[in-house]
Amino acid sequence: MDKSIPNETISRLFPYFRALMCLDKQGTETVSSARLAEVCRANSSKIRKDLSYFGELGTRGVGYNVKDLMQKIRTILNLDPIKNAALVGVGNIGKALLKYSNFELEGFKIYMAFDNNPKIIGKKINHVIVEDVVNMKKRIKSEKIKLGILTVPEPVAPAIARRMGDMGIKAILSFAPCSLAMPHNIEITCVDLSTEMAKLIYYSYR
Amino acid sequence: MDKSIPNETISRLFPYFRALMCLDKQGTETVSSARLAEVCRANSSKIRKDLSYFGELGTRGVGYNVKDLMQKIRTILNLDPIKNAALVGVGNIGKALLKYSNFELEGFKIYMAFDNNPKIIGKKINHVIVEDVVNMKKRIKSEKIKLGILTVPEPVAPAIARRMGDMGIKAILSFAPCSLAMPHNIEITCVDLSTEMAKLIYYSYR
Repeated sequence: MDKSIPNETISRLFPYFRALMCLDKQGTETVSSARLAEVCRANSSKIRKDLSYFGELGTRGVGYNVKDLMQKIRTILNLDPIKNAALVGVGNIGKALLKYSNFELEGFKIYMAFDNNPKIIGKKINHVIVEDVVNMKKRIKSEKIKLGILTVPEPVAPAIARRMGDMGIKAILSFAPCSLAMPHNIEITCVDLSTEMAKLIYYSYR
Repeated sequence: MDKSIPNETISRLFPYFRALMCLDKQGTETVSSARLAEVCRANSSKIRKDLSYFGELGTRGVGYNVKDLMQKIRTILNLDPIKNAALVGVGNIGKALLKYSNFELEGFKIYMAFDNNPKIIGKKINHVIVEDVVNMKKRIKSEKIKLGILTVPEPVAPAIARRMGDMGIKAILSFAPCSLAMPHNIEITCVDLSTEMAKLIYYSYR
């Protein structure tokens, strides 16, 4: 695949996919970029530009076939087949994510969850039974899980991220702030809510 | 304040502040940029560069006074006094955030929470009693709340964000995906977890 595809284009593909899912549910078979822009509440020329990186996907005067374009985006983003994830740390945020129905609707599945708290191990949260973290290596390897969600306290996050990398995990969505201590041989995205709040305040109170 | 301060510098100030809080708790009075870099697991020359935008904050050969630098960053980021936020939508994510102790530790306080579900209204979650959303306008105006956290289902998020803007809210952290329908007269940061997952998969499975 062309490596010159801008990160911003990649960032917008999933929102397009989300709008297409919605149109597909409504029974829409073809969609113009103008209509897709309306549904995504995005810009139609940007949509055409973004999609043009991946070849001739639409038909002039007709638009895009909804199912074909969804499939194309799933292939581009490597979402096919549905990606199973392992969640580590079943605290407040971990529990909320296990119950977060959007993930499954949108093509990701939290397939297993681990904690070290005996009070939580064995509990079933939205179809997932929380397992003892001591079994994590065996389970992640045997199920060939490549995607992790890290919802453990900040001080232990880098060490667990490194262990997950050693178990074959290739990408982690972390709710602990990122730091240089996080492993560099896997992709990690950190959702640092306090830093986002601080930035919001800085930019809005000026 | 100089408007040419890079966004990346602003993004790093809060992580520095977090490290300083930690040093302060340990009783550290002065810190070198090298030591601060170690604690933040950041780069010491980047720290010096970032902080140099705000004047001569350190003393050569001695370093930075921990309490003074914390105060300076609080002032720069406008975190002083502690910013109270109103949370709207007490579902799984909303509840997790109400229980998320880091916010309060780090200088933000969820001061009020609203929902339209009679089963949730009146419940106390971590010191906050959930209020009926019909009282939101009156309460936000009377307490002069400027910061919002939006954890409602995606379809209603833009309309609620607009209403919050009309009530005097200046900045919103939204867990519903951002779209053009969101109001443009206030600062909004969207935490779109599925899009982050899709990007992680794209970059890690290539």
